Amino acid sequence: MSSPSAPSSAWAAVDERRLWARHEKMARIGATPGGGVNRQALSPEDAAARQLMVRWAQDLDLTTATDPIGNLYVRLPGTEAGLAPVLTGSHLDSQPTGGRFDGTYGVLAGLEALQAIRQSGVQPRRPIDLVAWTNEEGSRFLPGCMGSGVFSGLMSIEELRPATDWNGTTVESALATLHAATPDVPTYAAPPPHAYLEAHIEQGPLLETADTTIGVVTGIQGARRYAVEVTGEEAHAGTTPLKNRRDALRTAITMVAELNREMEAGGEAVRFTVGRFDVEPGSPNTVPGRVQFSIDFRHPDLTAMKQLGGRIEPICQANAGSCSVYVQLIDDMPPTAFAPAVVDLVDRQTAALGYSKMRLPSGAGHDAMYLARVCPTGMIFVPCEKGISHNEAENAKPDDLAAGARVLTACLVELTDA
Amino acid sequence: MSSPSAPSSAWAAVDERRLWARHEKMARIGATPGGGVNRQALSPEDAAARQLMVRWAQDLDLTTATDPIGNLYVRLPGTEAGLAPVLTGSHLDSQPTGGRFDGTYGVLAGLEALQAIRQSGVQPRRPIDLVAWTNEEGSRFLPGCMGSGVFSGLMSIEELRPATDWNGTTVESALATLHAATPDVPTYAAPPPHAYLEAHIEQGPLLETADTTIGVVTGIQGARRYAVEVTGEEAHAGTTPLKNRRDALRTAITMVAELNREMEAGGEAVRFTVGRFDVEPGSPNTVPGRVQFSIDFRHPDLTAMKQLGGRIEPICQANAGSCSVYVQLIDDMPPTAFAPAVVDLVDRQTAALGYSKMRLPSGAGHDAMYLARVCPTGMIFVPCEKGISHNEAENAKPDDLAAGARVLTACLVELTDA
Repeated sequence: MSSPSAPSSAWAAVDERRLWARHEKMARIGATPGGGVNRQALSPEDAAARQLMVRWAQDLDLTTATDPIGNLYVRLPGTEAGLAPVLTGSHLDSQPTGGRFDGTYGVLAGLEALQAIRQSGVQPRRPIDLVAWTNEEGSRFLPGCMGSGVFSGLMSIEELRPATDWNGTTVESALATLHAATPDVPTYAAPPPHAYLEAHIEQGPLLETADTTIGVVTGIQGARRYAVEVTGEEAHAGTTPLKNRRDALRTAITMVAELNREMEAGGEAVRFTVGRFDVEPGSPNTVPGRVQFSIDFRHPDLTAMKQLGGRIEPICQANAGSCSVYVQLIDDMPPTAFAPAVVDLVDRQTAALGYSKMRLPSGAGHDAMYLARVCPTGMIFVPCEKGISHNEAENAKPDDLAAGARVLTACLVELTDA
Repeated sequence: MSSPSAPSSAWAAVDERRLWARHEKMARIGATPGGGVNRQALSPEDAAARQLMVRWAQDLDLTTATDPIGNLYVRLPGTEAGLAPVLTGSHLDSQPTGGRFDGTYGVLAGLEALQAIRQSGVQPRRPIDLVAWTNEEGSRFLPGCMGSGVFSGLMSIEELRPATDWNGTTVESALATLHAATPDVPTYAAPPPHAYLEAHIEQGPLLETADTTIGVVTGIQGARRYAVEVTGEEAHAGTTPLKNRRDALRTAITMVAELNREMEAGGEAVRFTVGRFDVEPGSPNTVPGRVQFSIDFRHPDLTAMKQLGGRIEPICQANAGSCSVYVQLIDDMPPTAFAPAVVDLVDRQTAALGYSKMRLPSGAGHDAMYLARVCPTGMIFVPCEKGISHNEAENAKPDDLAAGARVLTACLVELTDA
């Protein structure tokens, strides 16, 4: 069953119109005036999205399940009882002003795959469990990827329950409300997964720019976040000679300029962003006494990440001049390398289906980051318009979405027989 | 009446303790935890400061007046009705994290002079009008020196009314609120001023370094202010390659770094400051789409000022890269030379009172800049601690403040009899 041609009967049943129609319907839940969605984790909209998923599953005669952290599972049974399931899915929660495809696509592509496999008459050996992970975005409750973090054993639900949103609502009470919305869904029980494959929009411009349909995702780049504080001394802009100044802004821009030079020289794969830059007191005729800026540094390769990342604090210190600088490492996530077998599988099936493809790492974090710690994992990317994401303007083409669903279907069928 | 000894009866009535006590009381309005003041132009704190001035004037049986731009006047009448008044004063507004003496000293020294003259029984021929000018600092609303600019006819109130602060509040609505706070103050009416003399802390280190009590101010260096707006495009920090970005922050810091290099090479007299630097959207994982920054450039020499100042816009344009840039010249003040007669008067009275003195230009801009266009003008400086100003740590010695008030009193008496 593992020759490229075998699963064709299943992938051919993927229905582009049906997949698009489900996106349209799901997008109405938490729809924003700007054409995006506000469906934040564990909100009434999030609950409504899960209720819709449960109804769709029931229409397809598929069973659903959940767990204490609120992940929602939809099962296509396998022929051999008790085998470790193949997992696919993503998330239904969104940013406050998010798009219609980020996360949702992976869930609906998974549902489309399950339906296509059933229609095609293919009998998978292993069960296929479609999962909608809880709170991937982390915009309402921190940290993100709670569902996959707890599932993979890398987060403790006991530690997450007291986390609160801006209104003081706890994860614990929000979870109770969420579970109450789908009272008849039983608790999920299964052996550790055999493999995990997630479909997602790229959220970047590479596929569209290269006019390529499928992104064969090799892993997720590592990310470091820093908060840098530069302290000088406020002084009068008209009276203080340049050489007598301890200008925090001047020092900070020298640091950032130097960091930019170093990172640019670090090659194509480097992502380096200063997104916040707060100046005090922020008056046109006062020499700034304090600047705080953020650093977001990402790289797919651990060695390069450590080497380049290791330059950040020294460069800040070396350019502090007459000011003092405090560099705080806030977050340090190493790169994730997906299982070569799964990456090759996606590559091979994409070729078998005749779609253009390129290998690339994921720039953004995903639930696959955590699944990769417990089972062979991979991802399939499809293009999104201008690479715009985390934005109401987020958009994708129906035929690209369907292409990704076909590759996903073909891969899932092969994985279930391994 | 113009011999150095004549006004002694008046200057001798200056009360160091009373002057210091008024500084203490005024410093409570908008007091900051750091020991400074935040009393920005046309704010509730600014209004409260004016209300306190009105109360003090009433206690001294002095009349008050105001005008459309919100300048507050306190009059000591002269013996000959209808003569052009002698003006003195400064401003009560402060920087966001400003000091207790910048501006405030000139107003309170003027009030002390009026009180001392009245106590001494001296009958001035001309009226003496103490003025608290509106928005000298220009930290909330640009340009600064609005009050003296409009008074001197060099600014048009119609053009200033639409100016907004960072919250979108207009000068017009803020002025309406300010005037409502002192409803019973009538409108100021007087002939063009006979002379203007302003007392101020030096805001620089020269007097303290030379252990000198009185600065005889010869003029004010020229100043240009610019607002620069850099527009790029927001993008995802994790997915967008550096070469595909239109990073407004990155472009802006390149401009500022290049400007700093050029200005440093311009010699000792150059003053160049970027004090505001606002980044949008200001999210750590989003590439900035817009940056707005301020430029404050000053020089005592007109030729050098034009030559170096002329480099500012070209340098911004040359470093715009993939972003667009808009450079707006907000304010352009050539260097000011004070009237020799007034400078000599201050010099002579300082000598008569036996204080150490030195002649120096002002590094900072002052309302005197605008008054110098319409009447003989001068300034009196007193030392401030370490030359620190526009800073909560700004400080001055009670006896220096009193010395400046005595020189001011002596000069005002002589000016009123001229």
